[in-house]
Amino acid sequence: MSTSNQSFDRRRFLQFTSLAGAGLAASAPASRLFGQEVDSGKLNTGTIKCRGYAATDTSGKLSPWEFERRPVGEQDILIEIKYASICHSDIHTMKGDWGPQIYPQVPGHEIVGIVTAVGKNVTKFKVGDRAGVGCMVDSCMECGSCMHGEEHLCDKGATVFTYGTPDKSSPTGITQGGYSNHIVVRDHFAVHIPDHISLEEAAPLLCAGITTYSPLVNANFKIGDKIGVAGIGGLGHMAIKLAVSKGAEVYAFTTSPDKKDDILSFGAKEVVVVDDVAKLKPYKGRLDYMISTIPAQYDVAAYASVVKPFGFYTQVGMPVGFELTLSNLALSTTRVNFNASLIGGMPETQEVVHYCADNRVLPKIEIIKADQINDAWTKVLNKQARYRYVIDAKTF
Amino acid sequence: MSTSNQSFDRRRFLQFTSLAGAGLAASAPASRLFGQEVDSGKLNTGTIKCRGYAATDTSGKLSPWEFERRPVGEQDILIEIKYASICHSDIHTMKGDWGPQIYPQVPGHEIVGIVTAVGKNVTKFKVGDRAGVGCMVDSCMECGSCMHGEEHLCDKGATVFTYGTPDKSSPTGITQGGYSNHIVVRDHFAVHIPDHISLEEAAPLLCAGITTYSPLVNANFKIGDKIGVAGIGGLGHMAIKLAVSKGAEVYAFTTSPDKKDDILSFGAKEVVVVDDVAKLKPYKGRLDYMISTIPAQYDVAAYASVVKPFGFYTQVGMPVGFELTLSNLALSTTRVNFNASLIGGMPETQEVVHYCADNRVLPKIEIIKADQINDAWTKVLNKQARYRYVIDAKTF
Repeated sequence: MSTSNQSFDRRRFLQFTSLAGAGLAASAPASRLFGQEVDSGKLNTGTIKCRGYAATDTSGKLSPWEFERRPVGEQDILIEIKYASICHSDIHTMKGDWGPQIYPQVPGHEIVGIVTAVGKNVTKFKVGDRAGVGCMVDSCMECGSCMHGEEHLCDKGATVFTYGTPDKSSPTGITQGGYSNHIVVRDHFAVHIPDHISLEEAAPLLCAGITTYSPLVNANFKIGDKIGVAGIGGLGHMAIKLAVSKGAEVYAFTTSPDKKDDILSFGAKEVVVVDDVAKLKPYKGRLDYMISTIPAQYDVAAYASVVKPFGFYTQVGMPVGFELTLSNLALSTTRVNFNASLIGGMPETQEVVHYCADNRVLPKIEIIKADQINDAWTKVLNKQARYRYVIDAKTF
Repeated sequence: MSTSNQSFDRRRFLQFTSLAGAGLAASAPASRLFGQEVDSGKLNTGTIKCRGYAATDTSGKLSPWEFERRPVGEQDILIEIKYASICHSDIHTMKGDWGPQIYPQVPGHEIVGIVTAVGKNVTKFKVGDRAGVGCMVDSCMECGSCMHGEEHLCDKGATVFTYGTPDKSSPTGITQGGYSNHIVVRDHFAVHIPDHISLEEAAPLLCAGITTYSPLVNANFKIGDKIGVAGIGGLGHMAIKLAVSKGAEVYAFTTSPDKKDDILSFGAKEVVVVDDVAKLKPYKGRLDYMISTIPAQYDVAAYASVVKPFGFYTQVGMPVGFELTLSNLALSTTRVNFNASLIGGMPETQEVVHYCADNRVLPKIEIIKADQINDAWTKVLNKQARYRYVIDAKTF
């Protein structure tokens, strides 16, 4: 386990291959659809008319909404959304758990579909390509982080997230997410979805996949290492599958005893039902690394204590207010390093999609219609999701 | 910078040399004073009468108190205390900030003096030796941690802290600290104070010294690395001096502009007065490692942001309730590893005393009388200490 320069080297490699990929795309024939009609909007002649589901207040309830997106710019692609999946972050954001929001707002940052138009400077995609969009749609693209494939950590703080970020180019004044039938996005912020993965199974990779893949890869664990995963929902079940696929012996920590069989089927070696933090004690200092997807306040130091001294524990779940309170006395006795990780950059997002397609690391999903979204949100909050709801976008 | 097996190796070495030291002591003549009278008590015939200053409630005020300590046991030494210094932890504990206390209670865990008696099985000390006691006075001595010189992290949770821990052997039912004129302690939990450091300058090493030395050494930084120190009080000023002595380029972060000249005199390269967290921005990602001694709630992620990505940030200051609230979103954007450290084990405590004596790394102290303790505590809370108050024990 290390957080050495290997990480930087790997990111440089990813960035290089990402650019190389763009070069290859540039040499392929690219359709240009400016001025052509598409299903629900006119290219380059005006905004894109969309249907979707939006929050109008902090109630956590969504309702159908018709809205417009910006015209397809020279560096943009238009995607006809086929599927968008539901992330706990959607609910946190719309309810204002992470700060006040502008409404109406369409959530959704696990988005897949088919490219239906490309701007004149686009070389990365052509019409007909399968494409995905994750948690961000733009950044400065000039700073060190952006130039090294860390657009989510833009040094200028100019990362534009997929929904809710003020955005002058948007007719609604903010970015609008993927619970809708079309999206316009700068080409760099879309990834290719290879043919050997279904679109509906690819959708959750755009957030749940990359958010767990990035820290797991960064942890540089060895085959046979003991990896813990805390919180087995949409992110957690992907973390288990990813860690298992990379050769780890996985220990899953859940508060839901009825998930046990599922978790074992994902390849976990052991399931620990943490109905009391005392259940963590037998595991003290036994694991090589741990990732927590728990999106709420919890006893961080107690969970971290299962990692060996001087090991690493990564928080990816984001609680209300993004704040976690931890006992630094208890943490000091574990000697475990606590860190947090936020999604991943675009090259790594492309990588996780390919990795999961190639290695058949697929989320367990349930496809729903648009009018089931509110019910699905309730189930997510009640820990009843098994494990990712994917909205069929033709039902918007 | 690494948290590799080097740490374990070094600890094994320390443990070995500590045992070797005990062996040397065993071959030296050791006085046996059982049954002899000492200044204020009788050995082996009864309890040790002491004078000290105790808290009687959560007011944060101390008053003179006469009490008794246990008789000197076979593995104990009796120390006539010469100096005891004031740590912010004394105040936190007596005020109940870290949980309810039993009163009357004598604080103080930076204790130095002269050995005046030894139990019949003691080989480590002889009468007349200069000795120091820090934050703990016993542990199980059987578990893996205790056997490897990490008695403060006893696997059985049996660490007995110097004051306030329930203790059947104590006539008062709890351990009583160093604001007094004698202490009885198991020999393993006292360290030798070499002749080439004054007792009064050695006292603060027993907590402020070891608490900062342990994580700094564990950080394995290289000469010329940029090391940050946040919070420049008793611990912070030692952290600066220790890091400077080990070749670091030290950046000090303080909220007290009037400490600037002192801090530069300690060898810091730069002093940053953080009257607003925005003052931290120019340092973003620049430091190799950072230690925070801030003993209160503060914006952890903002301070951690000055460390380079994937670097380490160690919290040693212990706030009210031992709890820190941090933004895991902000921490994720820094990619910095947060950890906490608690004092150090006995071999490392002996090491820091020798290191500081050998390298003239000495605390800046002000000697006070017992009747000045309450005033000194007020000054500590008001950030007026410069930088460690040391109580002259003959004034108890």
